[in-house]
Amino acid sequence: MIEDSVRAEYFELLAFESVGADRSKLRETLACAMWLKAWLEKLGFSVALKSDSFSPPVIVAERKGEGKTVLFYGHYDVQPAERPEEWKTPPFVPTVVGDRVYCRGAQDDKGQFFAFFCGMRDFLESCASAPTIKIVLDGEEESGSGALLRMAESLRRELSADAMLVCDTSAAANLRPAIVAGLRGVAHLTLRLKGASRDLHSGEFGGAAPNPAQGMCELLASLHHADGSIAVAGFRDGIVPPVREELSAAEISTPGEEEMAAEIGCDPVGGQMGKSLAQRIGFEPTIEVNGVHSGYGGPGAKTVIPSEAVAKLSLRLVPGQKPKAAMDALRRHLEDRVPRGMKLVFEDVNEGAAGFRLPIGSPAFRLAADVLEEMDPRGALYMWDGASIPVLSTLRDITGAAPVIVGWGQAENRIHSPDESYSFEQFAKAREWAAKILAAL
Amino acid sequence: MIEDSVRAEYFELLAFESVGADRSKLRETLACAMWLKAWLEKLGFSVALKSDSFSPPVIVAERKGEGKTVLFYGHYDVQPAERPEEWKTPPFVPTVVGDRVYCRGAQDDKGQFFAFFCGMRDFLESCASAPTIKIVLDGEEESGSGALLRMAESLRRELSADAMLVCDTSAAANLRPAIVAGLRGVAHLTLRLKGASRDLHSGEFGGAAPNPAQGMCELLASLHHADGSIAVAGFRDGIVPPVREELSAAEISTPGEEEMAAEIGCDPVGGQMGKSLAQRIGFEPTIEVNGVHSGYGGPGAKTVIPSEAVAKLSLRLVPGQKPKAAMDALRRHLEDRVPRGMKLVFEDVNEGAAGFRLPIGSPAFRLAADVLEEMDPRGALYMWDGASIPVLSTLRDITGAAPVIVGWGQAENRIHSPDESYSFEQFAKAREWAAKILAAL
Repeated sequence: MIEDSVRAEYFELLAFESVGADRSKLRETLACAMWLKAWLEKLGFSVALKSDSFSPPVIVAERKGEGKTVLFYGHYDVQPAERPEEWKTPPFVPTVVGDRVYCRGAQDDKGQFFAFFCGMRDFLESCASAPTIKIVLDGEEESGSGALLRMAESLRRELSADAMLVCDTSAAANLRPAIVAGLRGVAHLTLRLKGASRDLHSGEFGGAAPNPAQGMCELLASLHHADGSIAVAGFRDGIVPPVREELSAAEISTPGEEEMAAEIGCDPVGGQMGKSLAQRIGFEPTIEVNGVHSGYGGPGAKTVIPSEAVAKLSLRLVPGQKPKAAMDALRRHLEDRVPRGMKLVFEDVNEGAAGFRLPIGSPAFRLAADVLEEMDPRGALYMWDGASIPVLSTLRDITGAAPVIVGWGQAENRIHSPDESYSFEQFAKAREWAAKILAAL
Repeated sequence: MIEDSVRAEYFELLAFESVGADRSKLRETLACAMWLKAWLEKLGFSVALKSDSFSPPVIVAERKGEGKTVLFYGHYDVQPAERPEEWKTPPFVPTVVGDRVYCRGAQDDKGQFFAFFCGMRDFLESCASAPTIKIVLDGEEESGSGALLRMAESLRRELSADAMLVCDTSAAANLRPAIVAGLRGVAHLTLRLKGASRDLHSGEFGGAAPNPAQGMCELLASLHHADGSIAVAGFRDGIVPPVREELSAAEISTPGEEEMAAEIGCDPVGGQMGKSLAQRIGFEPTIEVNGVHSGYGGPGAKTVIPSEAVAKLSLRLVPGQKPKAAMDALRRHLEDRVPRGMKLVFEDVNEGAAGFRLPIGSPAFRLAADVLEEMDPRGALYMWDGASIPVLSTLRDITGAAPVIVGWGQAENRIHSPDESYSFEQFAKAREWAAKILAAL
């Protein structure tokens, strides 16, 4: 199903520990970018690595052609794999088990974009005339696309295109093709709550010293009402609810409660009670605690009052929410509730990007639907993905290109978790899609 | 101020990493117990190490004498030092800076009980006739005294005594002598809250999957009312409030708000608003979050929904509260509030021991006060310490001995924190106290 030479290239790409968020991995991330530059140059692309202030470089490439201009967006940075002991195989050693490659980035997004690249190569090797193809590969998608967002305005001319293809999302269940008609935005921040100048004995000082672990819990508990709805005043301002057509298409493409329960291993009762799973994932914002750490966590007991607590939060935003306004509302909410005797510090605040939805009746969507129906007689579903590709709304604005977001992920790929994987069947689908859509555009 | 030979012995004792709560340190803890056995045997004690189920041994020693029987209680286990990078000197290398020894256990309780032992040796070497002296050294005081509590009943005859001396508490400010007239009880437990079977992508699953980090915060936030009072129904049942005489003596010996603020580095606003610092530390119970850990805590962002959250809680109990009833009330409170879609597991539940108060007009206290006034013309204060020596109420019950709890700690000793220390002046005071009280009894 995959030639040995292609597989070897794919595995070389995966072996780079390109954790863009981790500055200690910058050298690896840069080596990965250099490898991609060389790979694209062999296909006739002119390639530039663009970076600012020690960020992982943004890879910008162009191959002149005829007729339309197509822009491809992907990212070569990956999530951290900071608990390698939870992986069945080493996280940065691509390992084949059955029809599946296990590796951090096997899917998200190295596997997906590289399969697309291979399809693009298939197309370029066989076609008489190709459109102009532009590529932008982000090195910080998993941590907010900082460098690309900062330089986006200056790339306006360089990246202008008619259509924008993105291969960083999931197909529907059983690999049925899906066109993503909307993505949530994402933002994140870190909170640090400080109490005493050192960890204190909980007996000597219990009742005297304020407890930042307790205080942080109170702060974070205040973010939601008992029914799971968000309790931050002003956070939901401006939200544009889905139209009936979007909502009914989303209900079709979203897994059922039982299917979701089987997938995640517990009842899918996140979000606001009384709203459907499709609504909660596709059309509702979230505030998630990604991590909270304070005090003792070792074996046995250590009866301390911790001196500080740290929490990491991410927001998912839906169309109509302004990222800055949503973040400001959250910060105000927290600042108004700082527990007695403690100090709250915001760190690493990333206002991120807005969510967006695309009109499902557009010509680009109809073309994509035709190609996908040719690939699979079941035809394509429309999905409103709860995930984010933070930079897409900005790229859409500056390039003027209509996004066509089709990816081949599946829930069992466990992206962002230990044991991430991508099957050769998925790889082949992404590759076929690339060759066919480039021919059709 | 201290002979080289005594100092050498003290440093040998400190160098053992006798972290009783950490099973990986059992060998070190055992070596420490063997060292103490040999030390006491040289003074004419017969010594037995008693342990059950791989616990650090309890050291039980006796030296026959004439007249009364005096029991001494101390503990040779120490708090963990799990973040050695936060120490200015290596935590298990006794290091002298000025008049002060820095080391984990320099004070709590190795330094205090060993200084007492040295005073006991001074007394034994000089006296014509000594009382019978019994010693029990705990190896698990910092984690609940499990083995000693389990075997206490069987030691009833072996440990029976007229008076019980304990040197594991603090003096008042400026090393003014203090007699501890009450200690809080302590109990602890670990909570584990489980959601999905793995960490999930906060975009793909945000709004679908329940978030145990958020859920744990809601659980822990529910433990207190906004005024800092405990919100757990039944937890305070049976509390015996202090009598006027106790409260006024405690107000004298408790540091003022400003002094406490300088000591801890933030406003001393823990506990229930509207009660004094003396009340909150000496006569009120607490529920403290000693640690909470869930999800990502590394550099940058990782937008996950954690699969579980772990919290460690400790309780301080006051006279009248039954440890089992208080723990049951807490468990019921938490079980009644398990967030939707999650499972709560209790681990490492230690019901611990009750708090107690001693009548401040007793003959033993008057004798101790006389000895202390002889040592220091300022005389002794009575203190109701917020800390705990969990096993003391049990030992008091089974031995029939009247406790006399006098220690020489100072807040700047930073016990349970990095950079624990004990000054040679404190060591000398504890040593002098031992020699004098043994002579007076």
